[in-house]
Amino acid sequence: MPSTQSDALRDLMTRMTERTTANPAMGLPELRDMVDGLSTMAGEPTGVTYEEVVAGDRPALWCNPVGAVDDRVVLYFHGGGFLGNSASSHRKLAAHLAKAAGIRALVVEFRLAPEHPFPAQLDDAVAAYGWLLDNGFEAGNIATAGDSAGGNLATGTVLRLRDEGRPVPAAIVAMSPWYDLEAAEGTLDTNAAKDAFLNRPLIQAMAGMYLGADGSPRDPLANPLRSDPTGLPPVYLSAGGDEGLLDNAQRFAELARAAGVDVTLEVVPGMQHVHTTMAGRAPEADRTLAAIATWLRPLLGLG
Amino acid sequence: MPSTQSDALRDLMTRMTERTTANPAMGLPELRDMVDGLSTMAGEPTGVTYEEVVAGDRPALWCNPVGAVDDRVVLYFHGGGFLGNSASSHRKLAAHLAKAAGIRALVVEFRLAPEHPFPAQLDDAVAAYGWLLDNGFEAGNIATAGDSAGGNLATGTVLRLRDEGRPVPAAIVAMSPWYDLEAAEGTLDTNAAKDAFLNRPLIQAMAGMYLGADGSPRDPLANPLRSDPTGLPPVYLSAGGDEGLLDNAQRFAELARAAGVDVTLEVVPGMQHVHTTMAGRAPEADRTLAAIATWLRPLLGLG
Repeated sequence: MPSTQSDALRDLMTRMTERTTANPAMGLPELRDMVDGLSTMAGEPTGVTYEEVVAGDRPALWCNPVGAVDDRVVLYFHGGGFLGNSASSHRKLAAHLAKAAGIRALVVEFRLAPEHPFPAQLDDAVAAYGWLLDNGFEAGNIATAGDSAGGNLATGTVLRLRDEGRPVPAAIVAMSPWYDLEAAEGTLDTNAAKDAFLNRPLIQAMAGMYLGADGSPRDPLANPLRSDPTGLPPVYLSAGGDEGLLDNAQRFAELARAAGVDVTLEVVPGMQHVHTTMAGRAPEADRTLAAIATWLRPLLGLG
Repeated sequence: MPSTQSDALRDLMTRMTERTTANPAMGLPELRDMVDGLSTMAGEPTGVTYEEVVAGDRPALWCNPVGAVDDRVVLYFHGGGFLGNSASSHRKLAAHLAKAAGIRALVVEFRLAPEHPFPAQLDDAVAAYGWLLDNGFEAGNIATAGDSAGGNLATGTVLRLRDEGRPVPAAIVAMSPWYDLEAAEGTLDTNAAKDAFLNRPLIQAMAGMYLGADGSPRDPLANPLRSDPTGLPPVYLSAGGDEGLLDNAQRFAELARAAGVDVTLEVVPGMQHVHTTMAGRAPEADRTLAAIATWLRPLLGLG
């Protein structure tokens, strides 16, 4: 049984769906405002300070837990379908993850679709990684991480670094990643009655805005399910048992394992999309973040 | 000339007004989401940690600047017309004020109208003050502060404490306070072409939701312009030269001075409603916060 706090996330998603259903002509500003509301759900982590920087060409936000190891960093990409949310909206989630792992987080404010279609987001993500290297962080001391569309970027960034022969991070964390821009048949259908928020028309609309006129949903850098994951560092995949995108994590786990990648897949029963949105509130969210931290620290050379 | 950053606030307000004009049937959830967007404008203050607490019966958020004097506190009430925003939305503004003054801030998440009409907000505000006293803070080490509707509460709270014969705080800070629930003729008219966001219909709609079926816009605890301010501690009033609510601050300054209250009134030319929303971004916002801090510290016994 989900906790009452995780039930609250599902209830908020249900109200959001009711709003979009009642107002099918909802504009992008309204949709962006609405999804920002999800970010208020996380609890405020204690003992973390923040600092805005420009990482590459884009704004970014340092989350600095007091006492954290300051040369290890999670490079965080926020969710929001590539078209909404911000470093600000995902500050608390990234800070909870950083605090659990005892390291810093840098949350990247990548450009948004549809004003900036693919690969602008990936360009910004890779540039932020390069900014970390330019500022003395070692590739082996960096993990990429993200939720939903940010999980896609956390993965795609490393695929592109590998393609370009550049040093890759030590680990990838993808929470409820949205990989499948083709919206193939699968849990999007079988979990349709359980997922309170995401559905195929919404996924397809967001994919269209992300890919723009020139992008392909089969581009391996836009859709890691169409990639060859050979050579990726260890990957932690988390997904909710009740979410439509569940098989995005499952299918990537299968693909990456077949390519020899060290994959950890966690499916949390009864959870919605990005259940870690309830970090600092719901026990399921905090358990997942603790599990990620335990998995991540040795990969970054921490005890 | 306003700075480009303060121009950005005006531009956002203009877009918000365009959205409400284009969608006169905009629901309360959409309106609440939209006004939350204003809060993303402030810069992220460095060197501040946060902690959620329950103050009285309501959630509240501590903003703890590193190195702040920990027994002096600004009890902060957020704006949002009594019907929107939250401790979370005003975290950065309150933290900037606290950091400038070198003290802590406690941001109160009071109940919102219209679900909870007046005096629920004032009850929550007074309860949060009582919680501070119960936790060892001395009345003379507390200032109330707020913006817009929160400026009203920062003032009304002290009026009620005075009425009840309880110890009052050392100071009141009201930034662009919304006092006039009657929406009388004045700068609401003469600044109508300059104010990018507030207008009489919006003010009247919000006042109606706040007051509910039983409240009166002439109740001195709802509308401090109808109060006798005798016995209030020193008051700092800030307002923008271009805002419709400008004369709310001006009229209260006149009323309070006539009652023997020590009043500082700052009108910043060319500024919109709550120009300190741009804290950490716009020089005008940071100058106002610095001026408030310089004024406030001696009142709290700090050098």
